[in-house]
Amino acid sequence: MKRIAESTVRRLSLYLRFLEDFESRGLTTISSDELARRGGTTSAQVRKDLSNFGSFGKRGLGYSVPELRASIRQILGLERQWRVIIIGAGKIGAALAHYRGFRQRGFEVLAVYDNDPRKLGELEEGIAIRDIARLHQDAAALRPDIAIVTVPGPEAQRVVDRAVAAGIKAILNFAPVQLQAPPDVTIKSVNMAMELEGLSFALSNRE
Amino acid sequence: MKRIAESTVRRLSLYLRFLEDFESRGLTTISSDELARRGGTTSAQVRKDLSNFGSFGKRGLGYSVPELRASIRQILGLERQWRVIIIGAGKIGAALAHYRGFRQRGFEVLAVYDNDPRKLGELEEGIAIRDIARLHQDAAALRPDIAIVTVPGPEAQRVVDRAVAAGIKAILNFAPVQLQAPPDVTIKSVNMAMELEGLSFALSNRE
Repeated sequence: MKRIAESTVRRLSLYLRFLEDFESRGLTTISSDELARRGGTTSAQVRKDLSNFGSFGKRGLGYSVPELRASIRQILGLERQWRVIIIGAGKIGAALAHYRGFRQRGFEVLAVYDNDPRKLGELEEGIAIRDIARLHQDAAALRPDIAIVTVPGPEAQRVVDRAVAAGIKAILNFAPVQLQAPPDVTIKSVNMAMELEGLSFALSNRE
Repeated sequence: MKRIAESTVRRLSLYLRFLEDFESRGLTTISSDELARRGGTTSAQVRKDLSNFGSFGKRGLGYSVPELRASIRQILGLERQWRVIIIGAGKIGAALAHYRGFRQRGFEVLAVYDNDPRKLGELEEGIAIRDIARLHQDAAALRPDIAIVTVPGPEAQRVVDRAVAAGIKAILNFAPVQLQAPPDVTIKSVNMAMELEGLSFALSNRE
Protein backbone atom coordinates (compact mmCIF):
# COMPACT_ATOMS: atom_id res chain seq x y z
CA MET A 1 0.00 0.00 0.00
CA LYS A 2 1.24 3.49 -0.72
CA ARG A 3 2.25 5.72 2.15
CA ILE A 4 -0.77 7.45 3.71
CA ALA A 5 -0.32 10.94 5.17
CA GLU A 6 -1.01 11.45 8.87
CA SER A 7 -3.57 14.13 7.95
CA THR A 8 -5.51 11.55 5.90
CA VAL A 9 -5.63 9.12 8.84
CA ARG A 10 -6.80 11.94 11.09
CA ARG A 11 -9.65 12.76 8.69
CA LEU A 12 -10.66 9.08 8.59
CA SER A 13 -10.95 9.16 12.39
CA LEU A 14 -13.17 12.22 12.06
CA TYR A 15 -15.34 10.67 9.34
CA LEU A 16 -15.79 7.64 11.59
CA ARG A 17 -17.13 9.85 14.37
CA PHE A 18 -19.51 11.63 11.99
CA LEU A 19 -20.76 8.29 10.63
CA GLU A 20 -21.41 7.02 14.15
CA ASP A 21 -23.35 10.17 14.84
CA PHE A 22 -25.35 9.84 11.60
CA GLU A 23 -26.08 6.20 12.45
CA SER A 24 -27.26 7.07 15.95
CA ARG A 25 -29.68 9.53 14.34
CA GLY A 26 -31.05 6.81 12.04
CA LEU A 27 -29.48 7.98 8.77
CA THR A 28 -28.68 5.13 6.40
CA THR A 29 -26.96 6.94 3.51
CA ILE A 30 -24.74 9.98 3.36
CA SER A 31 -23.15 11.95 0.51
CA SER A 32 -19.48 12.95 0.32
CA ASP A 33 -20.80 16.54 0.36
CA GLU A 34 -22.42 16.04 3.76
CA LEU A 35 -19.35 14.30 5.20
CA ALA A 36 -17.18 17.11 3.83
CA ARG A 37 -19.37 19.87 5.25
CA ARG A 38 -19.36 18.23 8.66
CA GLY A 39 -15.56 17.91 8.56
CA GLY A 40 -14.82 21.37 7.17
CA THR A 41 -13.29 19.94 4.01
CA THR A 42 -14.30 19.35 0.36
CA SER A 43 -16.16 16.41 -1.13
CA ALA A 44 -13.18 15.89 -3.47
CA GLN A 45 -10.98 15.48 -0.40
CA VAL A 46 -13.40 12.96 1.14
CA ARG A 47 -13.44 10.90 -2.07
CA LYS A 48 -9.65 11.11 -2.39
CA ASP A 49 -9.13 10.03 1.23
CA LEU A 50 -11.38 7.00 0.79
CA SER A 51 -10.02 6.06 -2.64
CA ASN A 52 -6.71 5.14 -0.98
CA PHE A 53 -8.44 2.11 0.48
CA GLY A 54 -10.84 0.88 -2.19
CA SER A 55 -14.11 1.81 -3.81
CA PHE A 56 -16.90 3.01 -1.54
CA GLY A 57 -20.39 4.30 -2.22
CA LYS A 58 -22.42 4.49 -5.42
CA ARG A 59 -22.37 7.45 -7.78
CA GLY A 60 -25.46 9.53 -7.14
CA LEU A 61 -26.51 7.45 -4.12
CA GLY A 62 -23.75 8.30 -1.68
CA TYR A 63 -22.35 5.99 0.96
CA SER A 64 -24.16 3.44 3.09
CA VAL A 65 -23.59 4.74 6.62
CA PRO A 66 -23.18 1.33 8.34
CA GLU A 67 -20.97 -0.04 5.54
CA LEU A 68 -18.66 2.96 5.42
CA ARG A 69 -18.47 3.03 9.21
CA ALA A 70 -17.44 -0.66 9.23
CA SER A 71 -14.90 -0.09 6.45
CA ILE A 72 -13.25 2.85 8.21
CA ARG A 73 -13.13 0.92 11.49
CA GLN A 74 -11.33 -1.84 9.63
CA ILE A 75 -8.93 0.57 7.87
CA LEU A 76 -8.04 2.16 11.22
CA GLY A 77 -7.43 -1.25 12.80
CA LEU A 78 -10.31 -0.85 15.25
CA GLU A 79 -11.81 -4.31 14.74
CA ARG A 80 -9.53 -5.69 17.43
CA GLN A 81 -8.47 -4.82 20.96
CA TRP A 82 -5.15 -3.02 21.41
CA ARG A 83 -3.07 -3.59 24.51
CA VAL A 84 -1.73 -0.34 25.92
CA ILE A 85 0.71 0.48 28.70
CA ILE A 86 1.40 3.92 30.13
CA ILE A 87 4.94 4.80 31.22
CA GLY A 88 4.98 7.62 33.76
CA ALA A 89 2.53 7.67 36.70
CA GLY A 90 2.44 11.45 37.05
CA LYS A 91 -0.71 13.56 36.69
CA ILE A 92 -1.08 13.14 32.92
CA GLY A 93 -0.30 9.42 33.06
CA ALA A 94 -2.89 8.89 35.80
CA ALA A 95 -5.49 10.93 33.91
CA LEU A 96 -4.95 8.90 30.74
CA ALA A 97 -5.06 5.60 32.66
CA HIS A 98 -8.66 6.37 33.55
CA TYR A 99 -9.71 7.97 30.29
CA ARG A 100 -12.92 6.15 29.35
CA GLY A 101 -12.66 7.09 25.68
CA PHE A 102 -9.76 4.67 25.22
CA ARG A 103 -11.63 1.54 26.24
CA GLN A 104 -14.68 2.56 24.19
CA ARG A 105 -12.41 2.51 21.11
CA GLY A 106 -10.78 -0.81 21.92
CA PHE A 107 -7.63 0.51 23.60
CA GLU A 108 -7.21 -1.32 26.90
CA VAL A 109 -4.77 0.12 29.43
CA LEU A 110 -3.09 -2.90 31.04
CA ALA A 111 -0.63 -1.29 33.42
CA VAL A 112 1.16 1.92 34.32
CA TYR A 113 4.94 1.90 34.79
CA ASP A 114 7.08 4.25 36.86
CA ASN A 115 10.53 4.28 38.44
CA ASP A 116 9.46 5.91 41.72
CA PRO A 117 9.22 3.19 44.41
CA ARG A 118 6.72 5.31 46.34
CA LYS A 119 4.26 5.16 43.45
CA LEU A 120 4.36 1.41 42.86
CA GLY A 121 1.21 -0.47 43.83
CA GLU A 122 -2.38 0.09 42.83
CA LEU A 123 -3.99 3.03 41.14
CA GLU A 124 -7.75 3.49 41.34
CA GLU A 125 -9.96 1.32 39.15
CA GLY A 126 -7.65 -1.63 39.44
CA ILE A 127 -4.81 -0.52 37.15
CA ALA A 128 -1.49 -1.42 38.77
CA ILE A 129 1.57 0.85 38.85
CA ARG A 130 4.55 -1.41 38.17
CA ASP A 131 8.30 -0.96 38.30
CA ILE A 132 9.70 0.15 34.93
CA ALA A 133 12.62 -2.20 35.53
CA ARG A 134 10.15 -5.06 35.08
CA LEU A 135 8.84 -3.90 31.70
CA HIS A 136 10.98 -6.25 29.64
CA GLN A 137 10.06 -9.39 31.59
CA ASP A 138 6.39 -8.33 31.89
CA ALA A 139 6.11 -7.86 28.14
CA ALA A 140 6.18 -11.60 27.44
CA ALA A 141 2.91 -12.02 29.37
CA LEU A 142 1.27 -8.62 28.84
CA ARG A 143 2.13 -8.40 25.11
CA PRO A 144 1.59 -4.62 24.95
CA ASP A 145 1.05 -3.16 21.47
CA ILE A 146 1.27 0.53 22.32
CA ALA A 147 3.16 2.52 24.98
CA ILE A 148 1.97 5.97 26.04
CA VAL A 149 4.99 7.89 27.36
CA THR A 150 4.23 10.58 29.95
CA VAL A 151 7.60 10.90 31.71
CA PRO A 152 9.55 14.20 31.90
CA GLY A 153 11.48 15.17 28.76
CA PRO A 154 14.98 14.19 29.95
CA GLU A 155 13.81 10.65 30.77
CA ALA A 156 11.76 10.06 27.64
CA GLN A 157 14.42 8.67 25.28
CA ARG A 158 15.59 6.11 27.87
CA VAL A 159 12.00 5.01 28.42
CA VAL A 160 11.39 4.71 24.69
CA ASP A 161 14.54 2.58 24.35
CA ARG A 162 13.15 0.27 27.04
CA ALA A 163 9.77 0.05 25.30
CA VAL A 164 11.44 -0.73 21.97
CA ALA A 165 13.63 -3.39 23.62
CA ALA A 166 10.44 -4.92 25.04
CA GLY A 167 9.08 -5.28 21.50
CA ILE A 168 6.62 -2.37 21.41
CA LYS A 169 6.12 -0.98 17.89
CA ALA A 170 3.93 2.08 18.53
CA ILE A 171 4.48 4.95 20.94
CA LEU A 172 2.33 7.94 21.84
CA ASN A 173 4.70 10.51 23.31
CA PHE A 174 3.63 13.36 25.59
CA ALA A 175 7.18 14.45 26.52
CA PRO A 176 8.20 17.70 24.80
CA VAL A 177 11.25 16.20 23.09
CA GLN A 178 12.14 14.61 19.75
CA LEU A 179 12.59 10.87 20.15
CA GLN A 180 14.62 8.34 18.17
CA ALA A 181 13.42 4.82 17.39
CA PRO A 182 14.10 2.16 14.74
CA PRO A 183 12.19 2.59 11.46
CA ASP A 184 9.70 -0.18 12.28
CA VAL A 185 8.52 1.72 15.38
CA THR A 186 5.91 4.45 14.92
CA ILE A 187 6.09 7.43 17.27
CA LYS A 188 3.33 10.03 17.46
CA SER A 189 3.86 13.06 19.66
CA VAL A 190 1.22 15.12 21.44
CA ASN A 191 2.52 18.50 22.54
CA MET A 192 0.08 20.47 24.67
CA ALA A 193 1.99 23.74 24.29
CA MET A 194 1.92 23.36 20.50
CA GLU A 195 -1.86 23.01 20.63
CA LEU A 196 -2.06 26.33 22.48
CA GLU A 197 0.34 27.89 19.97
CA GLY A 198 -2.21 27.12 17.26
CA LEU A 199 -4.63 29.28 19.26
CA SER A 200 -2.17 32.10 19.99
CA PHE A 201 -1.48 32.18 16.24
CA ALA A 202 -5.21 32.46 15.53
CA LEU A 203 -5.64 35.20 18.17
CA SER A 204 -2.64 37.14 16.83
CA ASN A 205 -3.65 36.95 13.18
CA ARG A 206 -7.32 37.92 13.35
CA GLU A 207 -8.66 40.31 10.78
CA MET B 1 -3.32 37.93 5.26
CA LYS B 2 -4.36 34.81 3.40
CA ARG B 3 -5.77 31.90 5.30
CA ILE B 4 -2.99 29.73 6.76
CA ALA B 5 -3.57 25.98 7.09
CA GLU B 6 -3.46 24.43 10.54
CA SER B 7 -0.73 22.06 9.31
CA THR B 8 1.44 25.08 8.41
CA VAL B 9 1.06 26.56 11.89
CA ARG B 10 1.93 23.19 13.41
CA ARG B 11 5.13 23.02 11.35
CA LEU B 12 6.07 26.56 12.46
CA SER B 13 5.76 25.39 16.08
CA LEU B 14 8.08 22.50 15.24
CA TYR B 15 10.60 24.72 13.44
CA LEU B 16 10.65 26.98 16.49
CA ARG B 17 11.59 24.04 18.70
CA PHE B 18 14.34 22.96 16.31
CA LEU B 19 15.72 26.52 16.16
CA GLU B 20 15.79 26.73 19.96
CA ASP B 21 17.68 23.45 20.02
CA PHE B 22 20.13 24.65 17.36
CA GLU B 23 20.65 27.88 19.29
CA SER B 24 21.30 26.02 22.55
CA ARG B 25 23.98 24.07 20.69
CA GLY B 26 25.63 27.30 19.49
CA LEU B 27 24.61 27.14 15.81
CA THR B 28 24.12 30.58 14.26
CA THR B 29 22.90 29.70 10.75
CA ILE B 30 20.81 26.86 9.41
CA SER B 31 19.73 25.82 5.91
CA SER B 32 16.16 25.00 4.89
CA ASP B 33 17.53 21.52 4.11
CA GLU B 34 18.60 21.00 7.71
CA LEU B 35 15.30 22.32 9.10
CA ALA B 36 13.44 20.06 6.67
CA ARG B 37 15.45 16.96 7.57
CA ARG B 38 14.85 17.56 11.27
CA GLY B 39 11.12 17.98 10.68
CA GLY B 40 10.68 15.09 8.27
CA THR B 41 9.61 17.40 5.45
CA THR B 42 11.16 18.96 2.30
CA SER B 43 13.17 22.17 2.02
CA ALA B 44 10.57 23.39 -0.51
CA GLN B 45 7.91 22.96 2.19
CA VAL B 46 10.01 24.90 4.73
CA ARG B 47 10.49 27.78 2.29
CA LYS B 48 6.81 27.74 1.33
CA ASP B 49 5.71 27.77 5.00
CA LEU B 50 7.93 30.75 5.78
CA SER B 51 7.11 32.67 2.58
CA ASN B 52 3.57 33.14 3.91
CA PHE B 53 4.98 35.59 6.41
CA GLY B 54 7.72 37.48 4.60
CA SER B 55 11.22 36.99 3.32
CA PHE B 56 13.66 35.13 5.54
CA GLY B 57 17.25 34.03 5.09
CA LYS B 58 19.74 34.69 2.30
CA ARG B 59 20.14 32.52 -0.78
CA GLY B 60 23.14 30.26 -0.28
CA LEU B 61 23.66 31.39 3.32
CA GLY B 62 20.59 29.93 4.97
CA TYR B 63 18.73 31.42 7.90
CA SER B 64 20.13 33.22 10.92
CA VAL B 65 19.05 30.98 13.81
CA PRO B 66 18.30 33.79 16.34
CA GLU B 67 16.52 35.94 13.74
CA LEU B 68 14.32 33.15 12.43
CA ARG B 69 13.56 32.01 15.97
CA ALA B 70 12.45 35.55 16.88
CA SER B 71 10.39 35.85 13.69
CA ILE B 72 8.54 32.58 14.26
CA ARG B 73 7.89 33.50 17.89
CA GLN B 74 6.33 36.71 16.65
CA ILE B 75 4.29 34.96 13.93
CA LEU B 76 2.92 32.51 16.50
CA GLY B 77 2.01 35.34 18.87
CA LEU B 78 4.48 34.20 21.54
CA GLU B 79 5.97 37.63 22.27
CA ARG B 80 3.27 38.22 24.84
CA GLN B 81 1.68 36.40 27.77
CA TRP B 82 -1.62 34.63 27.17
CA ARG B 83 -4.18 34.33 29.92
CA VAL B 84 -5.66 30.85 30.13
CA ILE B 85 -8.47 29.32 32.15
CA ILE B 86 -9.31 25.64 32.42
CA ILE B 87 -12.95 24.56 32.63
CA GLY B 88 -13.33 21.15 34.25
CA ALA B 89 -11.36 20.22 37.39
CA GLY B 90 -11.24 16.48 36.67
CA LYS B 91 -8.04 14.50 36.23
CA ILE B 92 -7.09 15.95 32.85
CA GLY B 93 -7.96 19.51 33.90
CA ALA B 94 -5.85 19.18 37.06
CA ALA B 95 -2.93 17.69 35.10
CA LEU B 96 -3.02 20.55 32.58
CA ALA B 97 -3.29 23.17 35.34
CA HIS B 98 0.16 22.10 36.54
CA TYR B 99 1.74 21.46 33.18
CA ARG B 100 5.00 23.41 33.28
CA GLY B 101 5.37 23.55 29.50
CA PHE B 102 2.50 26.08 29.30
CA ARG B 103 4.13 28.75 31.45
CA GLN B 104 7.47 28.28 29.70
CA ARG B 105 5.71 29.26 26.45
CA GLY B 106 3.89 32.25 27.91
CA PHE B 107 0.56 30.56 28.63
CA GLU B 108 -0.41 31.38 32.18
CA VAL B 109 -3.18 29.35 33.80
CA LEU B 110 -5.17 31.82 35.91
CA ALA B 111 -7.94 29.65 37.31
CA VAL B 112 -9.77 26.37 36.97
CA TYR B 113 -13.58 26.33 36.85
CA ASP B 114 -15.95 23.56 37.82
CA ASN B 115 -19.60 23.15 38.76
CA ASP B 116 -19.03 20.64 41.56
CA PRO B 117 -19.27 22.47 44.91
CA ARG B 118 -17.06 19.82 46.53
CA LYS B 119 -14.18 20.74 44.22
CA LEU B 120 -14.29 24.51 44.72
CA GLY B 121 -11.35 25.96 46.65
CA GLU B 122 -7.64 25.63 46.12
CA LEU B 123 -5.70 23.26 43.94
CA GLU B 124 -2.02 22.65 44.58
CA GLU B 125 0.46 25.31 43.46
CA GLY B 126 -1.94 28.12 44.20
CA ILE B 127 -4.37 27.77 41.30
CA ALA B 128 -7.91 28.24 42.55
CA ILE B 129 -10.90 26.13 41.50
CA ARG B 130 -13.78 28.55 41.05
CA ASP B 131 -17.49 28.15 40.45
CA ILE B 132 -18.33 28.08 36.74
CA ALA B 133 -21.38 30.23 37.53
CA ARG B 134 -18.93 33.06 38.29
CA LEU B 135 -17.07 32.87 34.98
CA HIS B 136 -18.92 35.75 33.35
CA GLN B 137 -18.38 38.18 36.22
CA ASP B 138 -14.78 36.99 36.79
CA ALA B 139 -13.91 37.60 33.15
CA ALA B 140 -13.95 41.39 33.54
CA ALA B 141 -11.04 41.18 35.99
CA LEU B 142 -9.26 38.03 34.78
CA ARG B 143 -9.53 38.89 31.07
CA PRO B 144 -8.88 35.33 29.90
CA ASP B 145 -7.77 34.89 26.28
CA ILE B 146 -8.04 31.12 26.02
CA ALA B 147 -10.27 28.49 27.66
CA ILE B 148 -9.19 24.85 27.87
CA VAL B 149 -12.33 22.71 28.12
CA THR B 150 -11.92 19.36 29.91
CA VAL B 151 -15.52 18.65 30.97
CA PRO B 152 -17.41 15.48 29.91
CA GLY B 153 -18.80 15.49 26.36
CA PRO B 154 -22.46 16.16 27.22
CA GLU B 155 -21.52 19.30 29.19
CA ALA B 156 -19.02 20.70 26.71
CA GLN B 157 -21.31 22.77 24.48
CA ARG B 158 -22.91 24.52 27.46
CA VAL B 159 -19.48 25.34 28.85
CA VAL B 160 -18.31 26.68 25.49
CA ASP B 161 -21.41 28.87 25.29
CA ARG B 162 -20.53 30.30 28.70
CA ALA B 163 -16.91 30.93 27.64
CA VAL B 164 -18.06 32.66 24.46
CA ALA B 165 -20.53 34.79 26.42
CA ALA B 166 -17.64 35.79 28.70
CA GLY B 167 -15.75 37.11 25.66
CA ILE B 168 -13.25 34.28 25.13
CA LYS B 169 -12.17 33.93 21.50
CA ALA B 170 -10.04 30.77 21.59
CA ILE B 171 -10.89 27.33 22.96
CA LEU B 172 -8.84 24.17 23.28
CA ASN B 173 -11.35 21.34 23.59
CA PHE B 174 -10.60 17.93 25.10
CA ALA B 175 -14.22 16.72 25.13
CA PRO B 176 -14.90 14.12 22.42
CA VAL B 177 -17.68 16.10 20.75
CA GLN B 178 -18.08 18.60 17.90
CA LEU B 179 -18.67 22.09 19.27
CA GLN B 180 -20.41 25.11 17.80
CA ALA B 181 -19.20 28.68 18.24
CA PRO B 182 -19.50 32.01 16.39
CA PRO B 183 -17.09 32.49 13.46
CA ASP B 184 -14.82 34.85 15.43
CA VAL B 185 -14.11 32.11 17.98
CA THR B 186 -11.39 29.56 17.18
CA ILE B 187 -11.87 26.04 18.53
CA LYS B 188 -9.12 23.43 18.39
CA SER B 189 -9.91 19.92 19.54
CA VAL B 190 -7.53 17.38 21.05
CA ASN B 191 -8.89 13.86 20.95
CA MET B 192 -6.79 11.32 22.80
CA ALA B 193 -8.53 8.33 21.23
CA MET B 194 -7.88 9.77 17.75
CA GLU B 195 -4.17 9.98 18.56
CA LEU B 196 -4.20 6.27 19.40
CA GLU B 197 -6.15 5.54 16.20
CA GLY B 198 -3.21 6.97 14.26
CA LEU B 199 -1.08 4.29 15.92
CA SER B 200 -3.56 1.45 15.42
CA PHE B 201 -3.66 2.44 11.75
CA ALA B 202 0.14 2.29 11.57
CA LEU B 203 0.23 -1.09 13.36
CA SER B 204 -2.49 -2.50 11.09
CA ASN B 205 -0.91 -1.31 7.84
CA ARG B 206 2.70 -2.36 8.32
CA GLU B 207 4.49 -3.98 5.40
